[in-house]
Amino acid sequence: MRGYVLKDAGHAEWTEVPAPTPGPYDAIVRPTAVAVCTTDVHLIATAGFPAAVGKAIGHEAVGIVESVGALVKDFAPGDRVIIPAGGTDWRHPNAQRGEGKYVQTNNAYFSEDPTVAGVFADLVRAIDVDMTMTPIPDGITDLQALMVPDMVATAFTAVQRMEIDFGDTVAVLGLGPVGLMGVAGAALRGASQVIGVDSRQTAALARQYGATHIVNHEEGDTREQVLAATGGRPVDSVMIASGGSASDVFTTALRVVKKGGHVANVSVFLDQESVTLPLDVWGHGSIERFFTGVFVQEGREFYTRLLRLIQFGRLDPTPLVSHKLKGWDQLDTAIGIMRDRVDNVIKPVVIP
Amino acid sequence: MRGYVLKDAGHAEWTEVPAPTPGPYDAIVRPTAVAVCTTDVHLIATAGFPAAVGKAIGHEAVGIVESVGALVKDFAPGDRVIIPAGGTDWRHPNAQRGEGKYVQTNNAYFSEDPTVAGVFADLVRAIDVDMTMTPIPDGITDLQALMVPDMVATAFTAVQRMEIDFGDTVAVLGLGPVGLMGVAGAALRGASQVIGVDSRQTAALARQYGATHIVNHEEGDTREQVLAATGGRPVDSVMIASGGSASDVFTTALRVVKKGGHVANVSVFLDQESVTLPLDVWGHGSIERFFTGVFVQEGREFYTRLLRLIQFGRLDPTPLVSHKLKGWDQLDTAIGIMRDRVDNVIKPVVIP
Amino acid sequence: MRGYVLKDAGHAEWTEVPAPTPGPYDAIVRPTAVAVCTTDVHLIATAGFPAAVGKAIGHEAVGIVESVGALVKDFAPGDRVIIPAGGTDWRHPNAQRGEGKYVQTNNAYFSEDPTVAGVFADLVRAIDVDMTMTPIPDGITDLQALMVPDMVATAFTAVQRMEIDFGDTVAVLGLGPVGLMGVAGAALRGASQVIGVDSRQTAALARQYGATHIVNHEEGDTREQVLAATGGRPVDSVMIASGGSASDVFTTALRVVKKGGHVANVSVFLDQESVTLPLDVWGHGSIERFFTGVFVQEGREFYTRLLRLIQFGRLDPTPLVSHKLKGWDQLDTAIGIMRDRVDNVIKPVVIP
Amino acid sequence: MRGYVLKDAGHAEWTEVPAPTPGPYDAIVRPTAVAVCTTDVHLIATAGFPAAVGKAIGHEAVGIVESVGALVKDFAPGDRVIIPAGGTDWRHPNAQRGEGKYVQTNNAYFSEDPTVAGVFADLVRAIDVDMTMTPIPDGITDLQALMVPDMVATAFTAVQRMEIDFGDTVAVLGLGPVGLMGVAGAALRGASQVIGVDSRQTAALARQYGATHIVNHEEGDTREQVLAATGGRPVDSVMIASGGSASDVFTTALRVVKKGGHVANVSVFLDQESVTLPLDVWGHGSIERFFTGVFVQEGREFYTRLLRLIQFGRLDPTPLVSHKLKGWDQLDTAIGIMRDRVDNVIKPVVIP
Repeated sequence: MRGYVLKDAGHAEWTEVPAPTPGPYDAIVRPTAVAVCTTDVHLIATAGFPAAVGKAIGHEAVGIVESVGALVKDFAPGDRVIIPAGGTDWRHPNAQRGEGKYVQTNNAYFSEDPTVAGVFADLVRAIDVDMTMTPIPDGITDLQALMVPDMVATAFTAVQRMEIDFGDTVAVLGLGPVGLMGVAGAALRGASQVIGVDSRQTAALARQYGATHIVNHEEGDTREQVLAATGGRPVDSVMIASGGSASDVFTTALRVVKKGGHVANVSVFLDQESVTLPLDVWGHGSIERFFTGVFVQEGREFYTRLLRLIQFGRLDPTPLVSHKLKGWDQLDTAIGIMRDRVDNVIKPVVIP
Repeated sequence: MRGYVLKDAGHAEWTEVPAPTPGPYDAIVRPTAVAVCTTDVHLIATAGFPAAVGKAIGHEAVGIVESVGALVKDFAPGDRVIIPAGGTDWRHPNAQRGEGKYVQTNNAYFSEDPTVAGVFADLVRAIDVDMTMTPIPDGITDLQALMVPDMVATAFTAVQRMEIDFGDTVAVLGLGPVGLMGVAGAALRGASQVIGVDSRQTAALARQYGATHIVNHEEGDTREQVLAATGGRPVDSVMIASGGSASDVFTTALRVVKKGGHVANVSVFLDQESVTLPLDVWGHGSIERFFTGVFVQEGREFYTRLLRLIQFGRLDPTPLVSHKLKGWDQLDTAIGIMRDRVDNVIKPVVIP
Repeated sequence: MRGYVLKDAGHAEWTEVPAPTPGPYDAIVRPTAVAVCTTDVHLIATAGFPAAVGKAIGHEAVGIVESVGALVKDFAPGDRVIIPAGGTDWRHPNAQRGEGKYVQTNNAYFSEDPTVAGVFADLVRAIDVDMTMTPIPDGITDLQALMVPDMVATAFTAVQRMEIDFGDTVAVLGLGPVGLMGVAGAALRGASQVIGVDSRQTAALARQYGATHIVNHEEGDTREQVLAATGGRPVDSVMIASGGSASDVFTTALRVVKKGGHVANVSVFLDQESVTLPLDVWGHGSIERFFTGVFVQEGREFYTRLLRLIQFGRLDPTPLVSHKLKGWDQLDTAIGIMRDRVDNVIKPVVIP
Repeated sequence: MRGYVLKDAGHAEWTEVPAPTPGPYDAIVRPTAVAVCTTDVHLIATAGFPAAVGKAIGHEAVGIVESVGALVKDFAPGDRVIIPAGGTDWRHPNAQRGEGKYVQTNNAYFSEDPTVAGVFADLVRAIDVDMTMTPIPDGITDLQALMVPDMVATAFTAVQRMEIDFGDTVAVLGLGPVGLMGVAGAALRGASQVIGVDSRQTAALARQYGATHIVNHEEGDTREQVLAATGGRPVDSVMIASGGSASDVFTTALRVVKKGGHVANVSVFLDQESVTLPLDVWGHGSIERFFTGVFVQEGREFYTRLLRLIQFGRLDPTPLVSHKLKGWDQLDTAIGIMRDRVDNVIKPVVIP
């Protein structure tokens, strides 16, 4: 079989690789749709995760089960599933406190095990599948399900960190795919006013997902524009989902959020070593503004609930798919679209 | 001026009463729309709150400020407002822990002070208005705002007690006005499947507010029908908003909710002294199922956030108003409609 | 090897049984200390859990690992451990939401698998041990560790349900071993006044664990005595850990707790089918008082934290061991002591 | 009467000032014990709060009520009380959501009203006393109560932000008076291992309050020493209560806390404009570590619960008082002791 293997920085290509074999709790899955993530683009450019070199990469996929290990209870060949996107170790005691996700034993990009590889391949080994793999109910499309394990899950984890209450006012900085799902998630938690901040062409889609205002940060000071939208009141919480300078965007977030409000960041600033923040946003130490990065919640239980939101009509992530290409040989093109931000790309998808 | 005064059990009528005068933190408000609640119907029938006898009754109203006390900061004559529905004492230290609502010093039905009276009157004294009265933004109708202080606020308080997470499955027992708002509130907190249980004609409205299934408890066992809708999985949480036997309805709720799930009751069973529940729902003591009655959250801060949900298009309670009558002389009719459940009544409103 | 096997209602005895063999994630452990629980006494009397008939019973034990399965990571022969007390299925997706404990696949009393048996035996099979078995640090005695998986864990789970804040006032109904740990747990969460309610001889021990008042319910009305201790203020939360009539004790708890307060029950009323409660404690539906049974939290992660409380001197459960007998042939005696409540028994222990 | 008035930067002195008169909800209180805070020292040095210039300063005091306004319900002359330390506006709707403390209308250092002044004076006006002033129960000394409104309250608010669960491991950076109370508060919330980090002479006192380890950051890398104490495991939460470079101390805190752990800062870095933090502690954006400054919770309800901890023997802050001076003329000396960190000062107190 073939996999799209990371060779070294700036270089990944289709290569013959050994077919995986399942452990007793594993399954082998054939991808039927994969998505390209900015993380993959960064990884190819930098080879920044050393353990990923020499492996097939990619982490967002749905597929059809080919075979299952002897001790698998809930899956059989032919099942349509979300392939696990991350590598939470559900067999670590930390999982008993909700901290299993911080132990990424089974993550293709971190594991030294060469058989723990990515989804850009003819066949993928999914590990501990009764805990990690998610059946896709009838009536949900591959494209919908494909957006769940990273785009929806990341955004909705961030929304949980924002501790939104009924009628809250929320700002979402950056309206890429995760930011758009942040808008949708905030609306689904009962926010009233949701202010999207971006200069991209996704404003209309953001409104469709529940944004009530759009602020273009290139047309003026973000804080002033946000306060103009709220009648001068800082927002209750902020999601950060935009690139650029971490110092700038964290500062903006901390300046538009109320005292006691929550800021959750989902952007990854791999090219920056440190962040400089003004101390007055924390009253030089004595004022509460809650800040954190966000680690996406994984697992079949969470993904199943997210799928139910699609199943019962609360959410449709289909419009995130801006580019749909057919055939593994289009993967290079799809990665290029994401890397070069071609044609107002949101999310490119490849159907093998 | 005139007020609709409770004389004794079974007897209330329009009566000349002294016009109220505001204390330094109070306002005098002229109602522009009032709603009739089942609580009022019960009160008239039973005179069950002794302190209410001899006073104007009624507790759901919006109006126009006539005058304000000397120390009021945020209101002026002519303001359009929600008149406080309950009587939370915001000047009691318990309010500092979120328990001010349990101290109902300013509640017309409990206070011995004759000037603390109901809203079925030409003029109403609102107490401590900077904390209790809520400005109605432009673009929100009187009818919308009128549904906020009891119908929406009660239901949404219950929804908070249900601790809904993304994708949860919810059952709402009873689809009267509070139950309907419970459906809407569950959807707004991110529930996926919302199952309404009732035999009333409100099914279509329930679907409009986000119910995905309707179960008619007269057509079979409620538990079996709910489990049929969910694929056999108990629901994550239940709101009880239906009448009848408390023992029956509490038991049903505890039997359809999962282990570890939450049941919040908003129905009032004034005619029943006790409730008998099966112990097996709690594993004879060793199983978690969380149960509580619900005390509606009050106050300008909460009502303001609920109004913002209307303002930004997340919620429209207008369809709750099933009957709209003009003139104080129609109040008797409105009360009769509610009492006798005329014409699929949900909520009768009178425009003085 | 021999096991103490439940034959039928009223009859358990030492019997030759096959030695267990470990699955790949299991271990075989030799008990070095076991405790007798009222649950075991009830089980012998009634054979109430049909799956337990024909098996060795018992569920509280510490021991020494004899052998481990091929895939066990963290244990080796010779390790001193807490043997898992319950049967949480950590390989069920519900565990990802903190609800694994409701899926008791591996519980000796519920499982149909004859090799999933109790701890009153020469050797015990512990299942999925990296998740369920807990290493005992040096400096913690067998007796201390033996109290953790049921007595401390059950009480401390209940304390978490009571949502204690700094300075709260707490009542604990019943001062048996779990109630005593409830007193200790409430003090460790920052309660100020802790009122123990019992007529037993454990008052002195309760004070040692942090009770500030003792109320003897045989010397007067419990509610009046509790309110006398608090200056008339209902308590913030209540743990129920006493026997008798569930209706009586639940009613007492709901009558001494404040509006908005929490009641958590750990007592098991296997001999009672239903409970009758006054509706006025819930304002006939409209007042918040939070009630639940308690399902003990299990797992290596939680037990490890509880052991750390002992290790760092915050808690010493040793005084719970009121009777210490040597030799498996004393197990019948130990069970009799618990059954007949001999000599102010708290907890009888057998050292095989 | 006389007050200790801030003249300008570096200059405060006893001055004749007008005696305050109470509003209808106020009281006039005669201080019987006051404490000097580093905030006061900074204020004198910098005159950094312009509104405080020309007023008596000081904010930690207990006293005897001299007179009360006409509408005060719960206080009378002669009552022994904690004088409110901050200036929470309990008449602002934000208080209904627990955010009243962010509206410091009544804070002597921020209010433009000259009658809203500090506690270093013969008489003090306390505002809205039924909500802000706290009766001191018999059996609690003035010195104990004096430590409550800032030292204990600040530390315990931070402990709440740290979301400690049973058996957690905690680090407290800085063992001044707030840090010491942080140690005590962590132990009172059920922490097991509590590691104090400081080079001061307060190690013995920290151990008395519940520290299990002391790390001297001058004797090696703090992170290495903390991990040596924990067996290599990052701590569950951190309180920052030490001075120096905010960048250094925040970085240290974020480096010793686990993924998903909480860091709460109570130190005030008025002399620093910004803070620079490494991005890797947040995985360049994708890892959760929760950070916030801390705004002390105020109000009679919270202080009353803290006093109950003293009343029922859970906490004794008396040892924080390192210097006790008699007579207002010793105030200058007390301030000098705090400013110059004389004689291992923790907290200097003056008894007028």
